[in-house]
Amino acid sequence: MIDADLLIRGAAELCTMAGPGPSGESMLGLVAGGSVACLQGQVVWTGPDSQLEGAVRALPGARTLDASGCTVTPGFVDCHTHVLFAGERGDEFSQRCGGATYLEIAKRGGGIGATIRPTRAASRDDLVRLALPRLGRLLSFGITTAELKTGYGLDRASELCCLEAMAALPALQPVEIVPTLLCAHSIPPEFAKDREGYVRLCVEEIIPEAAKAKLARFCDAFVEEGAFTVEEGRRILSRGKELGLIPRLHADQMSQMGASRLAAELGAASADHLESIDEGGIEAMAKAKVAAVLVPVSTLFLRQSVWAPGRKLWDAGVTVALATNLNPGSAMSENAALTLSLACLMNGLSAAEALCAFTRGAARAIRMEERLGSLCVGKQADLVIHAASSHTHLPYHLAINHTRQVVKRGKVVYERELAPCAAA
Amino acid sequence: MIDADLLIRGAAELCTMAGPGPSGESMLGLVAGGSVACLQGQVVWTGPDSQLEGAVRALPGARTLDASGCTVTPGFVDCHTHVLFAGERGDEFSQRCGGATYLEIAKRGGGIGATIRPTRAASRDDLVRLALPRLGRLLSFGITTAELKTGYGLDRASELCCLEAMAALPALQPVEIVPTLLCAHSIPPEFAKDREGYVRLCVEEIIPEAAKAKLARFCDAFVEEGAFTVEEGRRILSRGKELGLIPRLHADQMSQMGASRLAAELGAASADHLESIDEGGIEAMAKAKVAAVLVPVSTLFLRQSVWAPGRKLWDAGVTVALATNLNPGSAMSENAALTLSLACLMNGLSAAEALCAFTRGAARAIRMEERLGSLCVGKQADLVIHAASSHTHLPYHLAINHTRQVVKRGKVVYERELAPCAAA
Repeated sequence: MIDADLLIRGAAELCTMAGPGPSGESMLGLVAGGSVACLQGQVVWTGPDSQLEGAVRALPGARTLDASGCTVTPGFVDCHTHVLFAGERGDEFSQRCGGATYLEIAKRGGGIGATIRPTRAASRDDLVRLALPRLGRLLSFGITTAELKTGYGLDRASELCCLEAMAALPALQPVEIVPTLLCAHSIPPEFAKDREGYVRLCVEEIIPEAAKAKLARFCDAFVEEGAFTVEEGRRILSRGKELGLIPRLHADQMSQMGASRLAAELGAASADHLESIDEGGIEAMAKAKVAAVLVPVSTLFLRQSVWAPGRKLWDAGVTVALATNLNPGSAMSENAALTLSLACLMNGLSAAEALCAFTRGAARAIRMEERLGSLCVGKQADLVIHAASSHTHLPYHLAINHTRQVVKRGKVVYERELAPCAAA
Repeated sequence: MIDADLLIRGAAELCTMAGPGPSGESMLGLVAGGSVACLQGQVVWTGPDSQLEGAVRALPGARTLDASGCTVTPGFVDCHTHVLFAGERGDEFSQRCGGATYLEIAKRGGGIGATIRPTRAASRDDLVRLALPRLGRLLSFGITTAELKTGYGLDRASELCCLEAMAALPALQPVEIVPTLLCAHSIPPEFAKDREGYVRLCVEEIIPEAAKAKLARFCDAFVEEGAFTVEEGRRILSRGKELGLIPRLHADQMSQMGASRLAAELGAASADHLESIDEGGIEAMAKAKVAAVLVPVSTLFLRQSVWAPGRKLWDAGVTVALATNLNPGSAMSENAALTLSLACLMNGLSAAEALCAFTRGAARAIRMEERLGSLCVGKQADLVIHAASSHTHLPYHLAINHTRQVVKRGKVVYERELAPCAAA
């Protein structure tokens, strides 16, 4: 018998995401009437509930969660967010939507500067205070792990301050935090006429300091017209890699500059966005095993007409991941259910593929698939009970939150009463 | 002094929607630090909180809601929904997104038939039971009045059964229900080879019975290729009008057949969808004072590339309204916040215009603006306290529910603890 201190029993559909693949449907590892047993924050058994009592012994004081009528998945891994920022840009959004031009908005102080200025002015504690409700909303949508990027400080002190704020977050709330240094997010205004000066600042000061302080796991760069060139991205990410920071990229978002090829060249963990990726980029990523992180909410928020080719990427054998891309300029939303739906509608994934992308795929994109993203013996007990009787209902019921309970490391960290949406 | 039994005090922004227009900003009627006093379900006073104590006397037992840090608006009026249906189409959604063709889906039993069959099989009580959680979700997003359509019964008994289910809903939950007969939603399968037979059934039996039973306020028709022709729509809606049912139309969704012109010709309350409206249609609607109901969630859900021209309609002087269009085939979402955001992003409205469209504009679209849709003396006390410090934050924070409290006819009918999203 296997000891357990937490049981999740009798889900209408248990989706372990531990199936063999390559199809989303087989990767899903669907167990009808499935149960999960956990001990000390790890999964110790999964299977049909009918077999649980012959295999698992509940320890005294063990908690049992009734998942009948519900779908159980691994906790969602949000592998691309910009949670840390100050400032409010609702007015700018309204102006943009009502027809104001980019120039008019810039004249009124809008754009990324409207986030950089207050973020630089914020203390570490301010940033933490502002991040907490955002992480709370992510958690409420079933996100148990979130990658967070710097990138609105854009000077040595502010970028480090953001990393320190990230380091403070795990003690204050349950979402696991994966820190990424994104000093190469934008050329800050004071370097507008000296790009080279800013790249040197990144390479010579910000990256080395962050690496030395061991405050970041990844180094990211936004390779795009108006941001950084491929050559600048290569210098910045290579420097990070040299110092132990795994490279990843904002790639092929608005234009095709070869950023996804750079990701392959550098052995990046992921290339993110990819609305403008071409066949060569897809091939290069497949060959180099670079994960593709789709962020469809920002495609919508920016009213881009072309969506990342999730279907093609999946079929080419690229690991596809999903993320909210939560940020104040191009994706102000913690609604992971919307991300999931858009991945189906606009990136061409099936429900099973989208769910795999938001769990197992995303865990691989942050190179944590050994511990996160699926529910099989030995994995961390991070899971969500969704109040819906089938996994296909989740993306279908557009932007509706079905999260009933969230378990992180074997503890219930979020719960609310919610009757399951059942097949009628 | 004015007596009050409910006070909503000190909103960061009170948006009465009672301003003069024509701009959204002036129509908004914004009062900083604004309060509302209500008595017996009606608004009796609005103004700056600093003037409240000199003007209003709280009756013994009066309730006071603290709206500090929050935005207060009229309750949202969802003027186009198909809440009443049975059946689950998540599998079909997943297949469609994963690349299955329309024919493949139809072969597997998908499409509107997958809703008609179980809806016909459902009893009145089944339909009520299925509708209640949907109405609960609409309410949670701040919707206090919802128009509901029949249209998945498509025979005499089932259409009447749906209207009877609507009549049962007000006693069971707080959202005010406005019933619409949409027997002209689709030609039902048994009439596939006899359209004329079905039109006659509508005109000779279903519409007269519904009118006689006084179970519907509106008669609606889906005028579109594959649904009903302009001539059929004219016959159906004219018959309804003759019998006291106000006409409204699903118009110009996929193709330009002249449906918005028909709406003008018939003096319809509204023409809804309008993705394919042309200049002539806009002119005709403006002249005939037909409201334009935008349903952007379905434009997204169906991956249409062209969005209804909300900006143009507004600028042409047409009353613009918003609705969720909740339905199982093309808009499975109660997320009114998503509708609001898409109206800004994709239909070209500012935040103020979108909020007006979802309150005052929508109330006009269902011809209830005398009582609903704005907060001035004499209107029904239907309002929402949003946990956000400015009205522009609401559509900006994409698909996130900020509803903290909902008041219907002067009673708090929904509440939850929620800290306001403040300008940082």
